[in-house]
Amino acid sequence: MFHLLHPEEQADLLKRGFTRRSFGRITTLLTAGAALPFYNEAALAQRAGMRRGMFDIPPDAVRISSNENPMGPCPEAADAMHNIIQKGGYYGWKEPFELVQAVSEVEGVKKEYVMPFAGSSDPLHRAVMAFCSPTKSFVMSDPGYEAGGGSAQFIGAKVIRVPLLKNHVHDVKAMVKADPNAGVIYICNPNNPTGTTTPKSDIEWALANKPAGTLLLLDEAYIHISREWENRNSDLVAADKEIMILRTFSKLYGMAGLRAGLAMARPDLLQKLQPWGVGFTPVTGMVGAAASVKSKNLVPERRKIIRDIREDVFSFLDKHNFSYIASDSNCFMVDVKRPAQEFAKAMMQQKVMVGRSWPIWPNYSRITMGSKSDMEKFKEAFLKVMA
Amino acid sequence: MFHLLHPEEQADLLKRGFTRRSFGRITTLLTAGAALPFYNEAALAQRAGMRRGMFDIPPDAVRISSNENPMGPCPEAADAMHNIIQKGGYYGWKEPFELVQAVSEVEGVKKEYVMPFAGSSDPLHRAVMAFCSPTKSFVMSDPGYEAGGGSAQFIGAKVIRVPLLKNHVHDVKAMVKADPNAGVIYICNPNNPTGTTTPKSDIEWALANKPAGTLLLLDEAYIHISREWENRNSDLVAADKEIMILRTFSKLYGMAGLRAGLAMARPDLLQKLQPWGVGFTPVTGMVGAAASVKSKNLVPERRKIIRDIREDVFSFLDKHNFSYIASDSNCFMVDVKRPAQEFAKAMMQQKVMVGRSWPIWPNYSRITMGSKSDMEKFKEAFLKVMA
Repeated sequence: MFHLLHPEEQADLLKRGFTRRSFGRITTLLTAGAALPFYNEAALAQRAGMRRGMFDIPPDAVRISSNENPMGPCPEAADAMHNIIQKGGYYGWKEPFELVQAVSEVEGVKKEYVMPFAGSSDPLHRAVMAFCSPTKSFVMSDPGYEAGGGSAQFIGAKVIRVPLLKNHVHDVKAMVKADPNAGVIYICNPNNPTGTTTPKSDIEWALANKPAGTLLLLDEAYIHISREWENRNSDLVAADKEIMILRTFSKLYGMAGLRAGLAMARPDLLQKLQPWGVGFTPVTGMVGAAASVKSKNLVPERRKIIRDIREDVFSFLDKHNFSYIASDSNCFMVDVKRPAQEFAKAMMQQKVMVGRSWPIWPNYSRITMGSKSDMEKFKEAFLKVMA
Repeated sequence: MFHLLHPEEQADLLKRGFTRRSFGRITTLLTAGAALPFYNEAALAQRAGMRRGMFDIPPDAVRISSNENPMGPCPEAADAMHNIIQKGGYYGWKEPFELVQAVSEVEGVKKEYVMPFAGSSDPLHRAVMAFCSPTKSFVMSDPGYEAGGGSAQFIGAKVIRVPLLKNHVHDVKAMVKADPNAGVIYICNPNNPTGTTTPKSDIEWALANKPAGTLLLLDEAYIHISREWENRNSDLVAADKEIMILRTFSKLYGMAGLRAGLAMARPDLLQKLQPWGVGFTPVTGMVGAAASVKSKNLVPERRKIIRDIREDVFSFLDKHNFSYIASDSNCFMVDVKRPAQEFAKAMMQQKVMVGRSWPIWPNYSRITMGSKSDMEKFKEAFLKVMA
């Protein structure tokens, strides 16, 4: 079942359930590339170990590892989901259309520019399958969200990792120049794991200067949490640019386990995603997502809740002179002054499950904003572990 | 959003929203094969028409078109889903494992031989992507469930359609002989659309005689509804044969819109499915499916309910001397003595939405077992339309 976990979770499990040596082995398998499946026989054989690792997590542990939202779905979304369960014997024709309608109105894009999915990982994977190939590379930031790179490796596409600028913004100039035959330039905004944002002007510059035929894949999974929400890039979709925007209901909307997301792009671009998978979305996720989009003050309210918690954590880190990267999202990177996996293990002993690290910054650990009480426990554990 | 509909529904919509001419055109697109996406620009441009077709269905229409189950999820499943919604902010690590555990116990296969999915269409699509190719064909029955053939065409694999035997059983001898390089031999048991079953001895014969390296893909979506449930083929999976069984919670379990299904096979076969998609399952579907599997008398109870309704409909047809194919599932084929699409239109005017037809039997229409009251309305409308 390893493959059934979110990439967020896979890395977490590897970190915990595996020794560092076996982790390295899996990483090798993951990067062996091309015709190999992501996880091979050896990886499968070790699933029992992972499962143990997973279920050994104490039930009272704080889970700030996978950029999840402890608030869960908003009341309107929860109500809509409760109300549809008994009708779940039918496939549900109208529910995806109703989500599309709601998104179309809020985002100012035509309905045929919106395609609903059961989350945003599916369209991300499909976009790589459809637009990359052994001769068309996948260009991403480093550090950046890894999932698209995995899909690219599977089909034998080169993965080009372009380091973030010193201010942790995507280096769009270098990304655009990286490969004249790029299939996809992938920008996660705000970036996972840094929570830093790339200005709209940079996105526009990339669109104007990228090679023709290269898709700009803009992952706005965390955009609702950021100040950049007001500068979100749906207008570039409406203007028929060669851009595809991914959105998920897993983050601000608190529906990670319930599954809803979407892709926005010109119909001819969206259409390329179609044959790479099947077109199912759970009716629960669809009605919950539509209700969430229609809930007028949900985005600013939850953004403020998350920002307040984040600012409190940053004040704490400042006060104790810890180094971190200022984030405008629900996660941030903190310098733990040792291999991040050792830190994660020590935090786990304090019943705090933190996020993973990236090879380019091995001493930085990713921390998700949990609830206020989660973060109080984080602070306490952090002081002990860093002492 | 055409692609987001179940193949069952796509065909229904085409039938209603499109003229016969445009239906033919889409069929041409669908069979144009190889590198084309399933639905091209022309198809997308006509979505507005489809949407109209869909929403024009009167709310009180009887829906016996897509092999859905009006009973919806069982109470234990509904409870489990209600209980998890508020925790939906988390991805849900344990829920897929708990489904696997439950299935493993009921089916007598090891846990690593079970892989959960959000329905069975996803593993069906992936199995074709993984095991077929331009040199490895897809062998299926005619009539048979079309979805796998669509996936095969997309990747340029030849689709070989082998007519059912005169008793409407799969012609396993002809299927096995059809291509020494077959990638997949697909058997839907009970078959969609006929509801007829293929004896276990034939499945075993196919396994013993098929070319080595060819996957026998056994779609048991409807098996719970059939007498063959007692002869289901999980033991062949447990015995490490080159077989993959697909199951869904969309039929007897009444969870079509809620999304849960699984594939059972040797881990090395399951593993090949992995990189062809992402590994997400809604927590709602997973907990509902696990509760359904654990519900002791659900399968025989619902099988009897469906059988009683079916026998009543067959008595009605016998009494009025109509021809139909005796089915052991929740759908059957009836001879409507004219092009089936004309019949469907006439039934729609009576507010009864019936299923589609297959080119090999153009005068047969597929009817799903709805509720008792649905089928009373069907009978009334049928007499009028056939008069």
